Amino acid sequence: MSGQAHVAVVQLAPRLLDFEANVNATVCAIETARARGADIVVLPELCLSGYMFDTMDEARSCAIKPEHPVFTRWARALAGSPGVVVGGFAERSGPELHISAAVVDATGVRAVYRKTHLWNSEKRFFAAGTEAPPVIDTAFGRVGVLICYDLEFPEMARSLAMRGADLIVVPTNWALDARPYGDEPPQVMLARAAARINHVHVACADRAGRERDQEFTGGSAIIDTAGWVLDTPDADGFAHATLTLSSARDRQISGVNHVFGDRRPELYTEVYRTADTA
Amino acid sequence: MSGQAHVAVVQLAPRLLDFEANVNATVCAIETARARGADIVVLPELCLSGYMFDTMDEARSCAIKPEHPVFTRWARALAGSPGVVVGGFAERSGPELHISAAVVDATGVRAVYRKTHLWNSEKRFFAAGTEAPPVIDTAFGRVGVLICYDLEFPEMARSLAMRGADLIVVPTNWALDARPYGDEPPQVMLARAAARINHVHVACADRAGRERDQEFTGGSAIIDTAGWVLDTPDADGFAHATLTLSSARDRQISGVNHVFGDRRPELYTEVYRTADTA
Repeated sequence: MSGQAHVAVVQLAPRLLDFEANVNATVCAIETARARGADIVVLPELCLSGYMFDTMDEARSCAIKPEHPVFTRWARALAGSPGVVVGGFAERSGPELHISAAVVDATGVRAVYRKTHLWNSEKRFFAAGTEAPPVIDTAFGRVGVLICYDLEFPEMARSLAMRGADLIVVPTNWALDARPYGDEPPQVMLARAAARINHVHVACADRAGRERDQEFTGGSAIIDTAGWVLDTPDADGFAHATLTLSSARDRQISGVNHVFGDRRPELYTEVYRTADTA
Repeated sequence: MSGQAHVAVVQLAPRLLDFEANVNATVCAIETARARGADIVVLPELCLSGYMFDTMDEARSCAIKPEHPVFTRWARALAGSPGVVVGGFAERSGPELHISAAVVDATGVRAVYRKTHLWNSEKRFFAAGTEAPPVIDTAFGRVGVLICYDLEFPEMARSLAMRGADLIVVPTNWALDARPYGDEPPQVMLARAAARINHVHVACADRAGRERDQEFTGGSAIIDTAGWVLDTPDADGFAHATLTLSSARDRQISGVNHVFGDRRPELYTEVYRTADTA
């Protein structure tokens, strides 16, 4: 395992329903990130399709299987390197669609994660995944995957970190939210909390632009294990940071305090087992 | 249940080992907050003793039982009202000491919570509590209690909110932490995340000042259910906000999204049951 990973997140502005244009934009983004030295490249949620579908037919029109040649192109852009790309796509699986993220290296698709918490109109078009997100061994460390609204469930980042993730990558499409009292997008605040609470690196690839009546946040950020934002996108939409992924594993935060060891599961397990909506 | 609660947090600077001075400061703080209209008054952690003990004898010297007359004085300051005070103290229980918070109304002590996650040198002097924190029915809504480092375990605020807390009050002594990339104390960021993720109000009463070589953050904040800071202390150390506590209960955040209902406990329960330190 190498000591350091150059992580890039690319804040694309996908074109709704223009699959070919989006494929080309992702390949170009990966090549550019690679040329700038990136080992791990994170692309937004649904970056091959766009987001604001009006009908099921629209959602289906850009949905693909993990065998689709776009992922071969992503893999080819990594040829000869231990690099990794994680990006979001609309996945077709029988009659169902999923909001998925593919983890791709030079050998092809390593894993696919299907988003398990669906936001708002996503529920009209997509089925929620039924499997916990993957933790992938890479040459740089262990990479876990979440998608967008998943981050609003602290159980998810906690679970990934406890299962060994050194870096959580988050393809996302953050709808622009009100910020009555500050400038930081609230979604970034939640990503920072997830990083700090679990002593794990977090890299969020948000999208830019607007689709139909929906404006997006453009809140991409690379966050360290103390919850500080190391980089946000430059004018080209690229954020970069060099991280020692394995540094996440030392969760001893004082001589006698350990982020996981200090947990008192006996005090909260019962609540966690209950899907209560009191 | 009244519609609204005027919540005040008072950022005292306790004097280390000067119990009588601290008692008087707390009574004065409650009376002042009441005169300004407060219904619920939150005081810092260990506000009757100070924090930076060097020896067990020092820690014991200010430790009291819940029957101590100081709580009668707090109750008397609330006479004739449905008001509530929550404040931190060193609790003596047989040979053990606890970092505790008392919930007091005009009738006396309603509940005592013993901090369940101990930070650093606290482990030298104090025993961790073995009971989950209380959720107290008040005239204004349901109040849950956490103390300081408890907030770094997202399971705690989650549990309290799922058990019905409308407001989580947090007596705290936040040691001053580095802020390499921003001005907001990281502990406030975690409190804001707890509020937003659980759609619950949070009121943190931090302390001011310095003891021995320890500087404190002075990060008191009253936070709404979207995670925004509504008020921080004025020059006198008082922060105020008027909250409709029961508004926390409507956790439907879109037509088809519910903060708890969208949870997928089957995906994280196993991890939660395991006190893993992988």
